[in-house]
Amino acid sequence: MLKHFLKVSLSFLVFLGLSLGILGVTTTPAWAISSIEDVPFPKLEKPEQILGPAGEIFTFATCNRGSQGFTLADAQIPAGAGPMPHIHHHTNEWFWTPEGGLELFQSTQEYPDLEHPPTDDAAGRAKIYTVDTVPNQIVYGPKYRVHGFTNITNQTRPLMFIWLQDSISPEYPFHDGGIREYFQDVGIPIADINHLPAITDEAKEEFVTHAPQYGINQSDYFLKYVSQVDSHPPLILAKGSNDPDLMAILDTIQAFNQGDTSVSCF
Amino acid sequence: MLKHFLKVSLSFLVFLGLSLGILGVTTTPAWAISSIEDVPFPKLEKPEQILGPAGEIFTFATCNRGSQGFTLADAQIPAGAGPMPHIHHHTNEWFWTPEGGLELFQSTQEYPDLEHPPTDDAAGRAKIYTVDTVPNQIVYGPKYRVHGFTNITNQTRPLMFIWLQDSISPEYPFHDGGIREYFQDVGIPIADINHLPAITDEAKEEFVTHAPQYGINQSDYFLKYVSQVDSHPPLILAKGSNDPDLMAILDTIQAFNQGDTSVSCF
Repeated sequence: MLKHFLKVSLSFLVFLGLSLGILGVTTTPAWAISSIEDVPFPKLEKPEQILGPAGEIFTFATCNRGSQGFTLADAQIPAGAGPMPHIHHHTNEWFWTPEGGLELFQSTQEYPDLEHPPTDDAAGRAKIYTVDTVPNQIVYGPKYRVHGFTNITNQTRPLMFIWLQDSISPEYPFHDGGIREYFQDVGIPIADINHLPAITDEAKEEFVTHAPQYGINQSDYFLKYVSQVDSHPPLILAKGSNDPDLMAILDTIQAFNQGDTSVSCF
Repeated sequence: MLKHFLKVSLSFLVFLGLSLGILGVTTTPAWAISSIEDVPFPKLEKPEQILGPAGEIFTFATCNRGSQGFTLADAQIPAGAGPMPHIHHHTNEWFWTPEGGLELFQSTQEYPDLEHPPTDDAAGRAKIYTVDTVPNQIVYGPKYRVHGFTNITNQTRPLMFIWLQDSISPEYPFHDGGIREYFQDVGIPIADINHLPAITDEAKEEFVTHAPQYGINQSDYFLKYVSQVDSHPPLILAKGSNDPDLMAILDTIQAFNQGDTSVSCF
């Protein structure tokens, strides 16, 4: 049976209890979900695996239910790895850090114009705030914000991504805001997890150059979109959340895993 | 004849006039040299050229005069390129930016222990300050500080490095604090400037792993040594300098180029 222990405010308990049938809940003074003990992954026979440009191993699943579409990636992030700062225009994202060790960063400023990324000659560079994650932390990163992460430990660390198609997204084949299509385009397919393919310079370049086709501004060096880094995030970032959408996502995954035929995951 | 127009305070004029025979001087309210119109390069028949791990083309010269030893590199920095944050323990450094366009960064905090770099599990990460350079700017970066730079333009930009052997440096073959020896070890020799060699993964790795042999802590991702970035440097950085040593270096180069046999450059 699905286990996820959520640290939530009392105001969410009734909603959670009704919608998810969770086994245990840790209440804290926080007013939003900040920690989940287990994020369910859709039970697929052979989920697609793709190697990212920094050696990240992504295991993908995409789910559709009515107008809701989202992609998950259960990822292994090598020591020191992580994407350069970037912006999503068609998706909203959650990061779940089962073991912590990942430093997430995000701006509060929003950059809603795909044609004017936060460079000095366009919208101006961003101030980003870092969050050193703890085990089981979940962090929300909505569209339009400069964000990214780094594995600041000496070991490979897990990271679960959830990208939810935003209401303004153009249509992509998987109905997920184009994120899985992006990784299929620029990443390297993993046929055998025990024999990883080489990362090509072409893949690294396309990760940047093909990004706008999928509603993404992707920088290729750290300070391209960033002029300031602050390790003390304001409350809007430290406690930012989108719990209704997150709950609906977890509910859809659970429904699929329980055989609900109104959900398709692949 | 050597031309270098220095923006200096009045207090330096007599010293400069006597020691260098400069042609023209721009006085500004600054109290240290912040701008030089031309940094002389030792006239060598065929200076050594090395390709750096980010595609930088370095043209080297090393000079020795008495106990003074320094290495210069006249470099071409590709768009978006630059080293990850690092620390020199045996050298003090100047950066001269003939065309600007390079964003230099530096900490005020010093990390004098080669065995305890500024990581979270050792000395703690640094706050760095950025300086967007203008044409002909010269910036001083003494030993022990986290520093580096990025070419934030879309074109290749020139950058002249000067590394002066510090008094506490162990002896290296070129008497320059080990910096040219480091690039010879980890860089890729350029035999023909019109046919650049490929940058190998091995060179990129050794740039980091061999660094401590040359008194350098070299990080391999931006946030390894850095927790904060601020675009408003304090006066100690914005106006920091070491003009006596810089003047002595320029004097040595000029003497070599004028045939002074007490100087050796190679």
